[in-house]
Amino acid sequence: MRKLSSLVDRVRHSAIREMLKEVAELRLKGYDIIQLSTGQPSLPIDEEVLEYLIEEMRRNRLLASSYTPTKGLRSVLEAIQNDLKVFGNIDVALNELVITEGATEGLLLIALTILDRDDELIIMDPSYVSYPQDAVIAGAKPVFVEENIEEGFQPNINRILEHITPKTKAILLATPDNPTGRILRKDVAKALIDISEDHDIWLVIDEAYKHLIYEGEHFWFWREDRARERTICVNTFSKDPAMTGFRLGYVYGPKEVIAAIEKFKQYSTLSSNTPAQIAAVYYLKPEVKKRILEYTLRIYKSRRDKMYEAVKQYLPEAVTIKPEGAMYLFANMKNYLRKVNLSDQEFMVKLVKEKHVAVVAGSSFGEKGKDHIRFTFVGEPEDRIEKGIKLIKEFIDEKID
Amino acid sequence: MRKLSSLVDRVRHSAIREMLKEVAELRLKGYDIIQLSTGQPSLPIDEEVLEYLIEEMRRNRLLASSYTPTKGLRSVLEAIQNDLKVFGNIDVALNELVITEGATEGLLLIALTILDRDDELIIMDPSYVSYPQDAVIAGAKPVFVEENIEEGFQPNINRILEHITPKTKAILLATPDNPTGRILRKDVAKALIDISEDHDIWLVIDEAYKHLIYEGEHFWFWREDRARERTICVNTFSKDPAMTGFRLGYVYGPKEVIAAIEKFKQYSTLSSNTPAQIAAVYYLKPEVKKRILEYTLRIYKSRRDKMYEAVKQYLPEAVTIKPEGAMYLFANMKNYLRKVNLSDQEFMVKLVKEKHVAVVAGSSFGEKGKDHIRFTFVGEPEDRIEKGIKLIKEFIDEKID
Repeated sequence: MRKLSSLVDRVRHSAIREMLKEVAELRLKGYDIIQLSTGQPSLPIDEEVLEYLIEEMRRNRLLASSYTPTKGLRSVLEAIQNDLKVFGNIDVALNELVITEGATEGLLLIALTILDRDDELIIMDPSYVSYPQDAVIAGAKPVFVEENIEEGFQPNINRILEHITPKTKAILLATPDNPTGRILRKDVAKALIDISEDHDIWLVIDEAYKHLIYEGEHFWFWREDRARERTICVNTFSKDPAMTGFRLGYVYGPKEVIAAIEKFKQYSTLSSNTPAQIAAVYYLKPEVKKRILEYTLRIYKSRRDKMYEAVKQYLPEAVTIKPEGAMYLFANMKNYLRKVNLSDQEFMVKLVKEKHVAVVAGSSFGEKGKDHIRFTFVGEPEDRIEKGIKLIKEFIDEKID
Repeated sequence: MRKLSSLVDRVRHSAIREMLKEVAELRLKGYDIIQLSTGQPSLPIDEEVLEYLIEEMRRNRLLASSYTPTKGLRSVLEAIQNDLKVFGNIDVALNELVITEGATEGLLLIALTILDRDDELIIMDPSYVSYPQDAVIAGAKPVFVEENIEEGFQPNINRILEHITPKTKAILLATPDNPTGRILRKDVAKALIDISEDHDIWLVIDEAYKHLIYEGEHFWFWREDRARERTICVNTFSKDPAMTGFRLGYVYGPKEVIAAIEKFKQYSTLSSNTPAQIAAVYYLKPEVKKRILEYTLRIYKSRRDKMYEAVKQYLPEAVTIKPEGAMYLFANMKNYLRKVNLSDQEFMVKLVKEKHVAVVAGSSFGEKGKDHIRFTFVGEPEDRIEKGIKLIKEFIDEKID
């Protein structure tokens, strides 16, 4: 066989996606899997949103199945514009906005847009699995800057400054964060804007979880006039409206960046799927979104509390902090992993096979994630969250014996 | 502003997408546009397919809005497997198959999978707009080989051989072809397999239009055992079932290639949207697909005939052949363009502004497409096709006066 490109070897599998595949296969075999791994909420799309979509698809079958402009339907772009005004109090022009296939496509196209071969992209360690891979696909180099639990997983500004070189093109991070659940502190955010200005560096902010906040509040970079010129924000409809399988997101940023993303999107997905855009228009009606957010946050917060309590009760040697946002509790499991003599990756693999509890190994999120486990708290109701954590305790106890 | 990547300058806009945007904007202003430009059928998704999707979404709201495995839902993969057996009499294993976001994502991920920096990809000139851009995004070099009307737009094997170098990694072409409507002749297809074997070169076959054939038949490369090792086939649900806006396609090929595409897809779109996969399962029931194909082909064939007649009648100096497949009539308009003193690009731009008839300039498909115009014949009913061609005659006549 003719050989494949060298990129095939340089890009790593997503541990989250591999676990999703594993879970799907175990479920096909009839096993009941407790799903504490992927960022898939167990809440379905809102019924009213779905019924609106159904009505619209029936009303205009041709439009519902036709291509939209690559940038997105005018109606969804205007709805997003309004949404950012209502919830973020920020003004975004239509040429500063483009629809994407979830945050995933947005992140890849941003990488292609701002990173040249051998450029450096600063990302936090640990952080979401796609960040370094997007840099590699763009031919650039991911540079990792440690975040740790002692510092509440806040980016350490001095440590970032130490990693800046003439090749540094951008800093990419999420708030609220995946996998740590940390919300960016206001003073840290402002220091990042300073760095961006001083060193003429892009800031890429992954806002996928901006509405999933249980304590504190989201820092909207675009509210700071001086930040707008160099800040690109990535968003998704996968998380707060639980429309993961609909694959829709958007990016807002400087218009030159958006124009380039739109151009690349002509060759990555051509246009985003039309049904998702129609559904999003309805979800973005402020009263609809407020109702869904209220409902969703109440459930997620309660599950977060249950997860935190269960970990404290059954896994007292796990070191963790209560996540303020997002969907994940990130725990340092070093004490247990030493006792059972397993790496975090081995722990993940054996746990799902033996106890049918799916989690994600911390080292999937970077070297500094080693010895950690990411527990998703939105994928199961409270009783099953508790059951899952108890099974993990059982798994550990059995391995120690 | 911090500068953008050099890739932004190296990748060209899609003329088709730009025209779609122009048409959308003119329509927003209230103009009635005759749409002979994009590959958007004027037929909507089949009502029965849509109703099945609606029923399934209501029946399992959580599944309908959840992520699927990156490779695709098991049910859709199995339905495709069966479909390829029923319609193509070929056996494709599940690990030789992956779902994509239309053919567009498939083509880009294939480029990333097989092309290294500075590799050469042989493509026909003219050919579909994304082919050279995908090569450029992968860091490779598109090498253009002329196809011309005198040779019935068949690839010329000797001309291809002249362009092969040690850097040639693949040959990419479509059958039926966009923009020319040409169906690959069996002897030419077999000669391409010979080249692929002799020079250890990938063959990438874009089968987007494989069911839209009015005369002749599709050559299924995978029916030839010796072709399977090096042939990758790209498919879409955008064309025969008219599900363009649903954004679903698939690729089949050697399992190593499919595994690499699946890995890249984790970072391009994560997974394809779930509603489209559910709809595809129903469309792929052989009796459903046969019914829809019969209906669709009858309408498209009749439109093709009308378009051909109208061009012959109103634009007798246009040089063209009756397209055997796909959705397009590709005409050499040199005589007229000289008379009105416009390039094909200028002709396209002025025509839509002045007469509200949208077409695509031939040079968008390559240098050899210069002086040609691509007319889509599936986007309008017959009376409007005729009206559009008459308006083009009128446009030309006015410019000559």
